[in-house]
Amino acid sequence: MSGRFITFEGPEGAGKTTQLALLADRLRALGEPLCVTREPGGTKGGEAVRAALLSPEAHWSPLAEMLLMNAARDAHLHEVILPALNAGETVLCDRFCDSTRAYQGGGGGLDPELVSIIEQNVCTRMPDLTLVFDLDAEEGLARADSRGARDRFEQKGLGYHRAVREAFRAIAASEPRAVLIDAIGAPDEVAERIRRAIATRFPDLGAL
Amino acid sequence: MSGRFITFEGPEGAGKTTQLALLADRLRALGEPLCVTREPGGTKGGEAVRAALLSPEAHWSPLAEMLLMNAARDAHLHEVILPALNAGETVLCDRFCDSTRAYQGGGGGLDPELVSIIEQNVCTRMPDLTLVFDLDAEEGLARADSRGARDRFEQKGLGYHRAVREAFRAIAASEPRAVLIDAIGAPDEVAERIRRAIATRFPDLGAL
Repeated sequence: MSGRFITFEGPEGAGKTTQLALLADRLRALGEPLCVTREPGGTKGGEAVRAALLSPEAHWSPLAEMLLMNAARDAHLHEVILPALNAGETVLCDRFCDSTRAYQGGGGGLDPELVSIIEQNVCTRMPDLTLVFDLDAEEGLARADSRGARDRFEQKGLGYHRAVREAFRAIAASEPRAVLIDAIGAPDEVAERIRRAIATRFPDLGAL
Repeated sequence: MSGRFITFEGPEGAGKTTQLALLADRLRALGEPLCVTREPGGTKGGEAVRAALLSPEAHWSPLAEMLLMNAARDAHLHEVILPALNAGETVLCDRFCDSTRAYQGGGGGLDPELVSIIEQNVCTRMPDLTLVFDLDAEEGLARADSRGARDRFEQKGLGYHRAVREAFRAIAASEPRAVLIDAIGAPDEVAERIRRAIATRFPDLGAL
């Protein structure tokens, strides 16, 4: 039986990585077989693409960013995600196709039709549940700053990050697989919101 | 006035790189301002993509290869080719969009419609003249072998390379910008075929 495919999406500084680790701990405690991964990356080629993408010296257009993200995603899906799902594991993935829709589409202004055509060709397996972390852009950037230097995406202006947030909210409103998670509050409050979203979508994980 | 954009296309071992260097020497002798470049690569980000693509350890699908090539091409076009053309230089480029059509489309079996949609979004400036080197697949691979170890593209089988050759021939037959160049013969014989193709397309270079 195929495993569950759960993605974590949302803006910078929303706490995705922390919450993913907390959820992984709880699922492991229940004895769930688990695969924890992230995009872009997770494969040898994908990590090379990640380094090229995040280098402050590179000058990628939103179109080139979108193509690179999808190339890494194709490798990640075939080498990591699909084998884990086929082995019955629950896959927790930090970012997937919705980040491309939100950053290169919503923030970068790419034609949504082009983004969609490429997504349909690459994402032959879509997530069963997508947790969309919601946080206003000012708060997200302030949290990212408190972690140190901004990377190439974090360096873009507030208007860009507001457009990204709106794109994520639109995905949560239109995709049945997606649930909006309020990212404001203490980590254990946010974790409780995630626990409820998981138990609602997967009743057999009600003991979470 | 925009400069001339000339691309060199064709299978492995067809002598493109040698002939490009010979043509560059003759154009320089005529006093033509020149930009010599190659794909994938030519930019900092593009060279990183080139390394990822050619690594024997990476497992890119034809779809991922096509996306990576186009990302590098977008950067190459905006950072190298368009600025040179805008400065009135003649651009000689070793591989461009037709290699993607032939290798990932013809050889890799990707949907030509998808390849075309992405090409139209990336290649906002198409070549004025494309020299398509023609050589049978066995001869091309034998020549590549004589240069040393095969890279990831050269390692694919003869059927793949035959499909690539046929795709290149189809481009030469259907695109008014393209001219088929018989790559069999001594370098100076092939150079003379190229000289004639250039002088026919650009009569002001008749002294070449």
